[in-house]
Amino acid sequence: MPTTETVAHSHSATLQLALALLERRSLTPDDAGCQTLIGERLAALDFELEWLDRGDVRNLWAVRGDAANGPTLVLAGHTDVVPVGAEALWHTPPFAPRIDADGWLRGRGAADMKGGLAAMVTAVERFIARHPDHPGRLAFLLTSDEEGPAIDGTRAVVDILHQRRERLDYCIVGEPSSESQFGDVIKNGRRGSLNGVLRVQGVQGHVAYPQRARNPVHQALAALDELVRQHWDSGNDFFPPTSFQISNLHAGTGANNVIPGELEVTFNLRFSTESDADTLKSRIEAVLAAHGLDYAIDWQLSGEPFLTRPGELTEAVTTALERLTGQRPTLSTGGGTSDARFIATLGPQVIELGPCNATIHQRDERIRAGDLDLMSEALEFTLDQLMR
Amino acid sequence: MPTTETVAHSHSATLQLALALLERRSLTPDDAGCQTLIGERLAALDFELEWLDRGDVRNLWAVRGDAANGPTLVLAGHTDVVPVGAEALWHTPPFAPRIDADGWLRGRGAADMKGGLAAMVTAVERFIARHPDHPGRLAFLLTSDEEGPAIDGTRAVVDILHQRRERLDYCIVGEPSSESQFGDVIKNGRRGSLNGVLRVQGVQGHVAYPQRARNPVHQALAALDELVRQHWDSGNDFFPPTSFQISNLHAGTGANNVIPGELEVTFNLRFSTESDADTLKSRIEAVLAAHGLDYAIDWQLSGEPFLTRPGELTEAVTTALERLTGQRPTLSTGGGTSDARFIATLGPQVIELGPCNATIHQRDERIRAGDLDLMSEALEFTLDQLMR
Repeated sequence: MPTTETVAHSHSATLQLALALLERRSLTPDDAGCQTLIGERLAALDFELEWLDRGDVRNLWAVRGDAANGPTLVLAGHTDVVPVGAEALWHTPPFAPRIDADGWLRGRGAADMKGGLAAMVTAVERFIARHPDHPGRLAFLLTSDEEGPAIDGTRAVVDILHQRRERLDYCIVGEPSSESQFGDVIKNGRRGSLNGVLRVQGVQGHVAYPQRARNPVHQALAALDELVRQHWDSGNDFFPPTSFQISNLHAGTGANNVIPGELEVTFNLRFSTESDADTLKSRIEAVLAAHGLDYAIDWQLSGEPFLTRPGELTEAVTTALERLTGQRPTLSTGGGTSDARFIATLGPQVIELGPCNATIHQRDERIRAGDLDLMSEALEFTLDQLMR
Repeated sequence: MPTTETVAHSHSATLQLALALLERRSLTPDDAGCQTLIGERLAALDFELEWLDRGDVRNLWAVRGDAANGPTLVLAGHTDVVPVGAEALWHTPPFAPRIDADGWLRGRGAADMKGGLAAMVTAVERFIARHPDHPGRLAFLLTSDEEGPAIDGTRAVVDILHQRRERLDYCIVGEPSSESQFGDVIKNGRRGSLNGVLRVQGVQGHVAYPQRARNPVHQALAALDELVRQHWDSGNDFFPPTSFQISNLHAGTGANNVIPGELEVTFNLRFSTESDADTLKSRIEAVLAAHGLDYAIDWQLSGEPFLTRPGELTEAVTTALERLTGQRPTLSTGGGTSDARFIATLGPQVIELGPCNATIHQRDERIRAGDLDLMSEALEFTLDQLMR
């Protein structure tokens, strides 16, 4: 069986770039040189690089071509990765990437999403080698703050593009959209996400004297039960029904003889385009009020839902994937949020396409190495269809 | 207006002893010399002292007289006090006791329960001065672990007394039983107390993928709501209905995008003699099972209920209080637990009588100084009636 070393010389350009990116310990918001590396490759292709760093966050907006004679297509993604937890629990060190004898590319960020970035760069390199004078514009939008607060990253760049009245036509975000095998799922939208921190007030007291206290837990249970059983909407062709989940619940002093004075409940709604944030807030407050609770809620809207209806972009990507994998991808709006929600406000068709997401945010993050070569080819073929 | 110093010479023996005890910083399990001080007073009265210390806990069992020719009456209590919190918030330092110009005896333990101990000692001193050859036995049972784990204190001494097959007839515990004014309430029993720590298992996951997780909070809400609305019993002439209180409730990782894997709920039942611990456990487990929860409970029975029905002891104390205060005391089984629950297992009639409990376990703990003189007289008159 060949060792890592003996096969190293045979890695594709995509895998070599992926390995170089994965070596960099780019924990949010540290870019650790990833964007400089990509920027050098893009500069060599005559992209104009614009560094839009904000605070600790590294942001790159790189453009090539002319918007006047064709569409603008953006390839977007992030160079930051999530923490690794206890490194000792990894089978191979998270920042010593390797392709093992079984064909797995291992390392933190292999799937989410340095692998996808490498595939984007090499796809563009091959496309430009064949079409140095392509019509329209190609652009990259990179950030090192997608896994963190996501305030100074893509959102900030998008704000600048709004001010410039930039017109974008297509955007492919390299997030790991695939489930069982590469290219089986494309994300063509994302649900909205609404967080609430509910505090229910009671009156603290001794458990031996319940008549002198008011237990906020006892008061809130029926209201919370009603909320978790609520039918919010039925979803639609593109979205599953809106869901409500309690993520954190805390009450009590630690002592077992004290009735707590306050209950704190953190919850999240993932909502379809059949609901909107304001209506959801009103419905929740109505339930709490109907149960007579003394409460306050801090709301935080992480993202409104967005949807890219089937069209040129989904068709081009679908055609490319079907030709390469023999399988027609499914369009999905499931899963968490991504920076695509910010880019969508600029009006382009946006989809997410990337490797399998089974191991993201876990230890031993890994993907099939060959999937990155497939992804690079799929992107190149997509460019062929759209940039002409 | 007289200062503390100018009136000091006029304090009764009871108040002088109370001040001496209150000076000692006897935070559980530290006795800080309180029992030595009391022991010296009892030794001077020909009590036989037996030190039954266990671990860090100081315990004294002191006896005078002959069980063969009359009843055994025990005066019981604790020398330890609860922590004071932020000393700076006290109007007078918690361990610099004083009687202020308005007649308040101030200091940590004034009510709970060094004041009561002082009243017991002086009552016995005066009784023995008048009846040096009283029939029966007088005994003191003191500990420095009532406010703490309560394992090495009265419970341990009671175990020894059980082994010796001691026969006790009457016991007065000096806990602060009074509410509005001294002697308005005598405790003639206590509810049982049963603690449970319930852990409900779910399957942790991402809030964006609720179908891959099982939220234990969502599953448990209806069951918990059923438990807090349950009618456990109706109480009886001596006990209020059994009550159920959730004291602590925790779930969640802190992150607002993670469905928790476990819910932990701590609850307490205060139960009347109409219920027993085993039946309550079965009823609770039946509710949890009916809701299909994957759960485990750690049970801890802090005390079975006990009841001293009206009889010689309640009659003697009631007569004494009525004569001194002009008011007939109420018998009550309300409130928390006390060491009386352990002593009750030895079979005597047990009551609790002590100062007003309005400020116990709080800052600025205080009682009316004159109440201790009343208490000492009430105890002396009770001894007159029972020890003859």
